[in-house]
Amino acid sequence: MKAVSQNTDYQYRVEVCYTPGQFPLYKQDMGIVVVIDILRATSAMVTAFEYGVKDIIPVATIEEARQYIGRPGHIAAAERNGEVVEGFPVGNSPLAFKGMDLKGKTIVLSTTNGTQAIHTGREARQLVIGAFLNLTALTDWLLKQDDNILLLCSGWKDKFSLEDSAFAGAVMDRLLESGKFGVEEDSSIASKYLYMAARDNFMSILKAAPRRKRLQQLHLLDDVKYCLTPDQSNVIPVLLGDRLVPLDH
Amino acid sequence: MKAVSQNTDYQYRVEVCYTPGQFPLYKQDMGIVVVIDILRATSAMVTAFEYGVKDIIPVATIEEARQYIGRPGHIAAAERNGEVVEGFPVGNSPLAFKGMDLKGKTIVLSTTNGTQAIHTGREARQLVIGAFLNLTALTDWLLKQDDNILLLCSGWKDKFSLEDSAFAGAVMDRLLESGKFGVEEDSSIASKYLYMAARDNFMSILKAAPRRKRLQQLHLLDDVKYCLTPDQSNVIPVLLGDRLVPLDH
Repeated sequence: MKAVSQNTDYQYRVEVCYTPGQFPLYKQDMGIVVVIDILRATSAMVTAFEYGVKDIIPVATIEEARQYIGRPGHIAAAERNGEVVEGFPVGNSPLAFKGMDLKGKTIVLSTTNGTQAIHTGREARQLVIGAFLNLTALTDWLLKQDDNILLLCSGWKDKFSLEDSAFAGAVMDRLLESGKFGVEEDSSIASKYLYMAARDNFMSILKAAPRRKRLQQLHLLDDVKYCLTPDQSNVIPVLLGDRLVPLDH
Repeated sequence: MKAVSQNTDYQYRVEVCYTPGQFPLYKQDMGIVVVIDILRATSAMVTAFEYGVKDIIPVATIEEARQYIGRPGHIAAAERNGEVVEGFPVGNSPLAFKGMDLKGKTIVLSTTNGTQAIHTGREARQLVIGAFLNLTALTDWLLKQDDNILLLCSGWKDKFSLEDSAFAGAVMDRLLESGKFGVEEDSSIASKYLYMAARDNFMSILKAAPRRKRLQQLHLLDDVKYCLTPDQSNVIPVLLGDRLVPLDH
């Protein structure tokens, strides 16, 4: 496999942070943070906006989300360890969101990893949401930005996640081609190699990963396939105060 | 690239932890810890034993190492940010160790990353030292062990390191083939892909990584080439109390 080619006189950096816990080591000079939780929080967010939700309030705790159960105009959603939390109508399944009436509503969402990562990155100048579902729209927009970009993987309970980092590699692949962006971190270079290794065979690679077996056991294979399908939406969710809204782009 | 094949009825696990800071998330049930700092601490350790040193005392701080400067039978060695610390005769250059009279001596060594990783993993049932230089000897020995194995990358100031994780992938590649060992963590699967992507082209991949440019600037390219050369030694350093000694294997 050939080495990651790189223009050395790039203007801005695009880097990958594998886990929220490592964010302090990577955040310096990073104006834009892209939060990534492919399975499934950020995929669910993009889907919800695609199907008409007005805004999404990401909250860290189940208790915060619970206060919104039954409140008019709101959908309280909570997931832990891949399952819908008891008492909630929905968790973080994109396909479940697709089947609901979302038009004009507010989702209040708490998940195992993704909403924590948003909390971690919230002080960036701009925080946006990435998923395979909005890959092209996101990268087209990122290419136009004049700032350093940190791709923040949500991981799994602060451990490295294969699908998040491979997706980061996909974004980076497109940004490096432009010559406008370059990388300095080993984690970024490795992400691109992972993407190059995985892109033709994503499902089988993920199936080899034991953590995904759990999703299979939970009968979420349709969700997984959908989350790995690029370009189902042009929506780029952006954090505005304490809520996500669709970016006007 | 085909997916990492895996026997599902393996007896023991072999996993990869990318940084010392993530060790608490990965250490559970891990009897054997392999500390990896390819550039250059663990490569230097293997080399020093190969050339006759009696034992190595890894210390966390420069001050601890400094107490041994000039002490008979001892060599005080300290490196920070790729350079020999002022006042010390040597840092962590394997080639510099090769040029010294080491026979029967004790090295007291403090480095930016590697000695910290040893400190992190010191409570394992057994802690051994890995490098490309002892790859085959190490993996042959690991294959005979009946325990879970954690490959602990030293990283760079607690960030992910390409050469450490690719080396971990090389070790894993051999252990998985046996069917005795299996993986559960995404970080482990990703390491194997990195190794598969890098193995035919290691130097050019490392040259693309900006951090290695610093080693080039410091005129350490010979050191780097040597550190990436497999099987220069059969020594496996093992931690015994507060010092490393050659394992009897």
